[in-house]
Amino acid sequence: MTLNDDQIQAKLNTLDGWSRDGNAITKTYALGSFPAALVFVNTVGHFAEAADHHPDILVEYKKVTLTLSTHSAGGLTDNDFALAQQIDSLPFRQ
Amino acid sequence: MTLNDDQIQAKLNTLDGWSRDGNAITKTYALGSFPAALVFVNTVGHFAEAADHHPDILVEYKKVTLTLSTHSAGGLTDNDFALAQQIDSLPFRQ
Repeated sequence: MTLNDDQIQAKLNTLDGWSRDGNAITKTYALGSFPAALVFVNTVGHFAEAADHHPDILVEYKKVTLTLSTHSAGGLTDNDFALAQQIDSLPFRQ
Repeated sequence: MTLNDDQIQAKLNTLDGWSRDGNAITKTYALGSFPAALVFVNTVGHFAEAADHHPDILVEYKKVTLTLSTHSAGGLTDNDFALAQQIDSLPFRQ
């Protein structure tokens, strides 16, 4: 169920701005303001809850860092990349 | 404007569950669900924006860790403890 290194790299190549960090992928979004960062977090949260797959979310003022991993599988799975792609298709200006 | 070690310790003693981490204070809140964690984050965000003082906010599923510091002053100030107290007076069940 977990992806191997080649599969992970192939999937990373289809995304923009995500990078691998061990068993996780991570991306930092620069929003226009703190309220905009909160709206972004809520929107990500909506999709995360719908997918029952929850990234770690770090808010540092206007900056939001997401970290995705499938803890139950002990590695990266299709679920991580599906959610990353869904989040990146959101209409947020950065 | 920054507080010294004695002042910081005295103020920490008036709070519940906050601890010092160098130039910051931090606390982890265990909410009842991921949606509850998001509501908590939004409420904290409301007070942070009103005070123009923004903690770092880390959401790990139902767990929310806040880290407060006054970066502009290079240390801990009354503003950090005022916001910590305000957040702790919110009616969130943990």
